[in-house]
Amino acid sequence: MDYRLYCFGESGNSFKAALMLSACGLEWTPVLVDYFNGETRGAAYRRDVNEMGEVPVLDDGARKLSQSGVILTALAERTGQFGWRDEDERLEGLRWLLFDNHKFTSYVATLRFLVALARTGETATTEFLRGRAEAAIGVVETHLAAADWLVGGRPTIADLSLSGYLFYPEDYGIDWGARPAIGRWLDRIRALPGWKPPYEMMPKAPAKRA
Amino acid sequence: MDYRLYCFGESGNSFKAALMLSACGLEWTPVLVDYFNGETRGAAYRRDVNEMGEVPVLDDGARKLSQSGVILTALAERTGQFGWRDEDERLEGLRWLLFDNHKFTSYVATLRFLVALARTGETATTEFLRGRAEAAIGVVETHLAAADWLVGGRPTIADLSLSGYLFYPEDYGIDWGARPAIGRWLDRIRALPGWKPPYEMMPKAPAKRA
Repeated sequence: MDYRLYCFGESGNSFKAALMLSACGLEWTPVLVDYFNGETRGAAYRRDVNEMGEVPVLDDGARKLSQSGVILTALAERTGQFGWRDEDERLEGLRWLLFDNHKFTSYVATLRFLVALARTGETATTEFLRGRAEAAIGVVETHLAAADWLVGGRPTIADLSLSGYLFYPEDYGIDWGARPAIGRWLDRIRALPGWKPPYEMMPKAPAKRA
Repeated sequence: MDYRLYCFGESGNSFKAALMLSACGLEWTPVLVDYFNGETRGAAYRRDVNEMGEVPVLDDGARKLSQSGVILTALAERTGQFGWRDEDERLEGLRWLLFDNHKFTSYVATLRFLVALARTGETATTEFLRGRAEAAIGVVETHLAAADWLVGGRPTIADLSLSGYLFYPEDYGIDWGARPAIGRWLDRIRALPGWKPPYEMMPKAPAKRA
């Protein structure tokens, strides 16, 4: 199957899907989305690609799937890799995918976007997001201090989802050195077949035109 | 089965689970969580109830389920109500559950929390959240302008999830009158068997002690 992934390099949600495709040994090509010049906010993108106005979107030739958690779930089911052994694992995995989208990636990614990409400097908003991000990071650090992987004692789409934004090189003021269990977990994920850094996996989006 | 729901009235994520239990005709009792005095942030709650430090948590006597999207999914599968007919619907429903957690409820609920519960007044942070919330609300309004329900032409857990926070009476400055499709959709959900307003379904949390 010829997979095409609507994405751009700076998007950690895109990286989650890109890493899953590569780790499963699937062939895929990136379709670069001009995010900083508004492509995802335009009518054509919302009509033809994703009504939610987001990346990533995975086109398998027959249909388009959006939301990284949906793409990860569908690929796990199709390939039999990084998925669930039974109903308990499936619900536990969904719990971490939702926590990622609701709290973990959500606050970390938004903080990174403002500080490292939009370059707002430190503001009341980044201070607010930083507090929420640190709390969510603490939940993951505590869990990983007692387990090598988030669910089931082996790498799953829960790990690929929650780690997605943590492989980016930009500094936005989180002291990752103080989170050693997360650091060791990221090393384990880097050792998976197919792992490459985000900017080697997907092209960066063009800068905003003046 | 004797369901106990760890919750508090102000929590729209709790209301999503409460409404699902009631709409399915299940017997359940609320277990009030003292959120404003820090219960969910305490070690005992994280150890015994939910390591993620959140409500809702559904205890069915055998196990505890957390994350509203997990509770909705598990109850839909157990009861055969408000769930999916096939794989396409399941992935489409998951897409909306994730969008809700990542964008829709997430920004709306945080804006409501700051303005209506923490009473911060209008700040740079609420302005930021308001922009994000309005964009997410626009996606749902556009979708519902062309469909009575989010997925499959009938009420599903996607509707119960995304509507959860919109039944609260507090004003936080969103002009819902300008979103007529959402208004009609909420009326359809209010007409479901078992629907009651959040504060009639769950007790409010005690105020923060001085």
